[in-house]
Amino acid sequence: MNQRPGLDQAGLSTGKKARLHRILYRHGLGNGTAVFLPYDQGLEHGPRDFFANPAAGDPRYILKLALEGGFNGIAIQIGLAEKFYWDYAGEIPLVLKLNGKTDIPPADHPLSPVNATVADAVRLGADAVGYTLYMGSPAQERDFQQYRQVREDAQRLGMPLIVWSYPRGEAIEAKGGKDSFYAVDYAARTASELGADVVKVNFPHPEKRYGAADPYHHEFSSQEAIDAVVRSANRTLLLVSGGERAGDKAMLDKARQSMEAGATGLIFGRNVWQREHTESLRFVSQLKDILAKYP
Amino acid sequence: MNQRPGLDQAGLSTGKKARLHRILYRHGLGNGTAVFLPYDQGLEHGPRDFFANPAAGDPRYILKLALEGGFNGIAIQIGLAEKFYWDYAGEIPLVLKLNGKTDIPPADHPLSPVNATVADAVRLGADAVGYTLYMGSPAQERDFQQYRQVREDAQRLGMPLIVWSYPRGEAIEAKGGKDSFYAVDYAARTASELGADVVKVNFPHPEKRYGAADPYHHEFSSQEAIDAVVRSANRTLLLVSGGERAGDKAMLDKARQSMEAGATGLIFGRNVWQREHTESLRFVSQLKDILAKYP
Amino acid sequence: MNQRPGLDQAGLSTGKKARLHRILYRHGLGNGTAVFLPYDQGLEHGPRDFFANPAAGDPRYILKLALEGGFNGIAIQIGLAEKFYWDYAGEIPLVLKLNGKTDIPPADHPLSPVNATVADAVRLGADAVGYTLYMGSPAQERDFQQYRQVREDAQRLGMPLIVWSYPRGEAIEAKGGKDSFYAVDYAARTASELGADVVKVNFPHPEKRYGAADPYHHEFSSQEAIDAVVRSANRTLLLVSGGERAGDKAMLDKARQSMEAGATGLIFGRNVWQREHTESLRFVSQLKDILAKYP
Amino acid sequence: MNQRPGLDQAGLSTGKKARLHRILYRHGLGNGTAVFLPYDQGLEHGPRDFFANPAAGDPRYILKLALEGGFNGIAIQIGLAEKFYWDYAGEIPLVLKLNGKTDIPPADHPLSPVNATVADAVRLGADAVGYTLYMGSPAQERDFQQYRQVREDAQRLGMPLIVWSYPRGEAIEAKGGKDSFYAVDYAARTASELGADVVKVNFPHPEKRYGAADPYHHEFSSQEAIDAVVRSANRTLLLVSGGERAGDKAMLDKARQSMEAGATGLIFGRNVWQREHTESLRFVSQLKDILAKYP
Amino acid sequence: MNQRPGLDQAGLSTGKKARLHRILYRHGLGNGTAVFLPYDQGLEHGPRDFFANPAAGDPRYILKLALEGGFNGIAIQIGLAEKFYWDYAGEIPLVLKLNGKTDIPPADHPLSPVNATVADAVRLGADAVGYTLYMGSPAQERDFQQYRQVREDAQRLGMPLIVWSYPRGEAIEAKGGKDSFYAVDYAARTASELGADVVKVNFPHPEKRYGAADPYHHEFSSQEAIDAVVRSANRTLLLVSGGERAGDKAMLDKARQSMEAGATGLIFGRNVWQREHTESLRFVSQLKDILAKYP
Repeated sequence: MNQRPGLDQAGLSTGKKARLHRILYRHGLGNGTAVFLPYDQGLEHGPRDFFANPAAGDPRYILKLALEGGFNGIAIQIGLAEKFYWDYAGEIPLVLKLNGKTDIPPADHPLSPVNATVADAVRLGADAVGYTLYMGSPAQERDFQQYRQVREDAQRLGMPLIVWSYPRGEAIEAKGGKDSFYAVDYAARTASELGADVVKVNFPHPEKRYGAADPYHHEFSSQEAIDAVVRSANRTLLLVSGGERAGDKAMLDKARQSMEAGATGLIFGRNVWQREHTESLRFVSQLKDILAKYP
Repeated sequence: MNQRPGLDQAGLSTGKKARLHRILYRHGLGNGTAVFLPYDQGLEHGPRDFFANPAAGDPRYILKLALEGGFNGIAIQIGLAEKFYWDYAGEIPLVLKLNGKTDIPPADHPLSPVNATVADAVRLGADAVGYTLYMGSPAQERDFQQYRQVREDAQRLGMPLIVWSYPRGEAIEAKGGKDSFYAVDYAARTASELGADVVKVNFPHPEKRYGAADPYHHEFSSQEAIDAVVRSANRTLLLVSGGERAGDKAMLDKARQSMEAGATGLIFGRNVWQREHTESLRFVSQLKDILAKYP
Repeated sequence: MNQRPGLDQAGLSTGKKARLHRILYRHGLGNGTAVFLPYDQGLEHGPRDFFANPAAGDPRYILKLALEGGFNGIAIQIGLAEKFYWDYAGEIPLVLKLNGKTDIPPADHPLSPVNATVADAVRLGADAVGYTLYMGSPAQERDFQQYRQVREDAQRLGMPLIVWSYPRGEAIEAKGGKDSFYAVDYAARTASELGADVVKVNFPHPEKRYGAADPYHHEFSSQEAIDAVVRSANRTLLLVSGGERAGDKAMLDKARQSMEAGATGLIFGRNVWQREHTESLRFVSQLKDILAKYP
Repeated sequence: MNQRPGLDQAGLSTGKKARLHRILYRHGLGNGTAVFLPYDQGLEHGPRDFFANPAAGDPRYILKLALEGGFNGIAIQIGLAEKFYWDYAGEIPLVLKLNGKTDIPPADHPLSPVNATVADAVRLGADAVGYTLYMGSPAQERDFQQYRQVREDAQRLGMPLIVWSYPRGEAIEAKGGKDSFYAVDYAARTASELGADVVKVNFPHPEKRYGAADPYHHEFSSQEAIDAVVRSANRTLLLVSGGERAGDKAMLDKARQSMEAGATGLIFGRNVWQREHTESLRFVSQLKDILAKYP
Repeated sequence: MNQRPGLDQAGLSTGKKARLHRILYRHGLGNGTAVFLPYDQGLEHGPRDFFANPAAGDPRYILKLALEGGFNGIAIQIGLAEKFYWDYAGEIPLVLKLNGKTDIPPADHPLSPVNATVADAVRLGADAVGYTLYMGSPAQERDFQQYRQVREDAQRLGMPLIVWSYPRGEAIEAKGGKDSFYAVDYAARTASELGADVVKVNFPHPEKRYGAADPYHHEFSSQEAIDAVVRSANRTLLLVSGGERAGDKAMLDKARQSMEAGATGLIFGRNVWQREHTESLRFVSQLKDILAKYP
């Protein structure tokens, strides 16, 4: 419905454009769409996420999977990047995830502390950095301050900045929840206002209306909701995240509606690697069939 | 009633004077008055503000409107400035809004975190920067500290500083409310004491007396109140903000009384772009008719 | 009763001595005493302080009054200094007040945030800087840290440092109150221990004994109390502040006892400018008659 | 069961490899395994830990013991390093422990403040630095921020970084406790994700399941648990700590299972020096017999 | 009982050794022992401490007393050092006390903010700096961070660092109190672990056992307790402080037992200057008679 924004409209510096071009046109389908493999769950949730497919606990397995599946990039934390990326350096783009936390302490005032810098990303040959912004958190003041330093460093060093724009915290819970249309729409806009090059959002749920702002109390279809979210991101490229493991049909529908709405691509982790290897590749192949229709 | 302070009285450095002169005499009516278009509501309130006129959700629409309407400047956040201002760079002055927040967490101890720097403004060719000061907030200590860095940078780089001087927080609510005469009067003075070049205030409501300081318990007309507020700002140029959408007559009266009191101009957002395009231009034209009477 | 400390005993660097000498011997009576005009109430209390004499809301009026009254200096915030001091620069010494706050949020843990730097004072041609220390405040830890930077900058730049040593906060309220002999005596000593060149205190009230430390539970006359306070300040020059508007006789008695005790001078604001112009000058003249007796 | 990671796989810079090689192949058994002597209990618990063997209160005794026992390194705080390491400098590797705290204040939101820097370690000729990360603590946000500076300095100066990855705080207590399989497994992974070169963990207790994440509710043997923990550390070398004094057989079993699982070695303090001298050496000799089987 | 550590064992840099040598061998008895005169009570408690001997409120009196009494140094805050030390500069060693606070706010989470730097001490010709560490305070995390900067500066500038290691705060109150054997023993060790050159402690009270750690529940004599404390300080020189004014016999016993235990000396303030001048000198003379027996 919306037209996907081009790299020429995103206000990119030369370095940012060079790196994003590499990600979007030299890897994956090479048609300007993208599918990323995020692998920071070992920090965010702990090894419990790997019990469904123990092989996935080994970073070597994941990097190989990313290569075999023809992903446009892999998003990992500094520790794994330093110890495992060398083996495949240059073969698959690295998105260095700059912040992260464990899920053990209470999450009512969440903030994800910075564990690595844009300079670390440059040193490791990364093509982008990732930052989790807990938009709407009572800790948002400190989050914005921390984010600002990342944005400035990314600007100075020509490094594309992907914002995981995640509505979180007790105030969000009271206003529709983290994947309500209201929250996701606001999250996409926030990332765009604050200067993200790419924004990662959850797929919006228009039926979650309780506590949301007034205009969201009407009936909206999933397609209308994701259309609006992509518009709110305007010239910021938008990725839809997979979230927790769910049924294949639901995931493929989500992917199709997102691309139809003008998203640039997908970032699916647990839905990919929490299954057996051949199954993972088959599922990724289905996702890429969808992306191929949106050159 | 008061005489509008001239640029020669405001203690301006050469750089500040050059930029303010450009805004006040090379754009808009060019007679020393000004009307600005603020467009940070996508961050401050979220996309909900755009449902009344969906076209307004697109920053391109707003920039074009600012140009067609002959505004003296447009105030936006760093993300939109980087992605959209290039198209019209030099055609309309940019006021880079340096801080902002979402309205999701509770607002009893508000502080608006800095998202961009005066150096960003210089890099983007801006003619002024904007800072929201939540005057009277229990977080005012941190706010003043954050503001001080902005003031110093603006001083060093010759960049005019517009302070959104907004009484906010639980203490203000208990002492007359955010648009009481007492609160607005104090807000204008605070910005002036702290070195703002321009201050943006709400139109004062002298009838909101409950909890305000003693001298404000008397009867004052709207005109008396705005006169006093402009005097409290003394040599700091004063802009009156529009606030939430209201009836045209009320808005035009507010504009007329403000200019009569010695204000330098207006800064109207939702009252402009939350209506259909032709209607927006017609309304702006009425505002400019008023400003034309105060050369 | 005590001998007033001379500039040669105060451990002053060349720059500090040069500037203090200018204040004490080239302005006012020129006899080593001083009377200052403080004008930061527009920030500290808001425009409500100007309703008693509306002309006083205009900084031009105050600067002119300081000149006509032959004051030794005027203490103002950065904003007014930048916009108004130029007109009289060099004609009357400027004391740049470096910190300040509004009185809207609760004051049980007070701290006055820094709004300007010693470097700003140098740039504006000031002859001293002022810092409000809320001695005894539960926020005293942060206050001391903030103060330390000011003290170091003043030391490095040869700028005299006047400390508004004000006992404040809930703990002070429980231990005798802000103008008890105990609190004021301790405040004078604190400023001296922390390296103030000049300290500004309230006049002590020996009858406020409830909650104060034991030795202060005896009977003391006003004169005995102010004598002790000046001794506690030792080689730090001491100024007595006027505080809220009070009767002339009370104020003149306070001034006389202070000078008798070895104070260097007075710093009277509201008691001066909250009355009609001629009255102000007449009152200042009476103050100077007293100071003239202590060359 | 797992293969112990080699130095060539750990993503080490030249300086880090040189120092780790010295520790693992030039000291102790010289076969790539290691046993360290930690001696920071004087700060962490106070002198009470020395009453069982008063001689151990003297740092000279401990350094001599480390030499006699053929340890691969001794871990001490800055104060003891400056006053006692000179005597044996070069004879036994120094692990400078960079943070630490007393156990007097409540430990529900624990964070261990940094007392020395990586630069101090370089200056003192240390071969590694140690950092205690209270993983899962409600103060984890500040902990990660503090840790990041240490990681960056260690990277810049080529200094191996050993992370004491200790699950702690009220949230951990509610989710299985500090030595549950769940907590220790997560702790190993966290250190690895955050870029530790070596991680020190407690031996996991799979029977502590109450409150732990779901996948940990099954039955696991000790060997299965420590196997999984070593896999979670992946290319980060793993040391198992001794903790409180316990029976010899239990400790030796723990050691054997750890080495079998692919651990690099042990770090035993109180179990070594809270007994008489000859006994200490005999026990260490038994530990080294185990390590010798895993060249 | 213990041997007093020599300067050659304390891991001192050249600058630190030069200055400590000056204090210990060129002043006082010149035999390696020391008695210091602390005079920061004007800040810590306020002028109330001077009512017992009003002359003591005047810093000139105290400096002269230090000289007449043949003290090894005087410990004062920055303000008094700048205004009074010049008169006797070089005649008596200056210990610049770097932090301090008033006793007005509640002391359940105490921290003593830094008011001056090691660079100030160098500028003023000091031979040591003093830092109060409120060991065990709930604010200990910030205290350690603040202390670390002081330790690093002292290391860099070759300035001996004397730590006032004071157990304080609500947690200490619940675990035996500030002068229990447990607390003082832990305090001595903490200063040593954190790199103090000299530590100042209170005399331990072995009878205060309630709430202390287990090993301290046995019966210990005073002599056994102070012996243990000196051992816990190991190569950190130890000074015993006088605390509140007490009977002469008790003080002299304390002094004797401390020196017997291997302390380097005493630091007595109120017990010295809260009495008439001749009495002060007589008491100091008795203290020095004791020290003379421990060359």
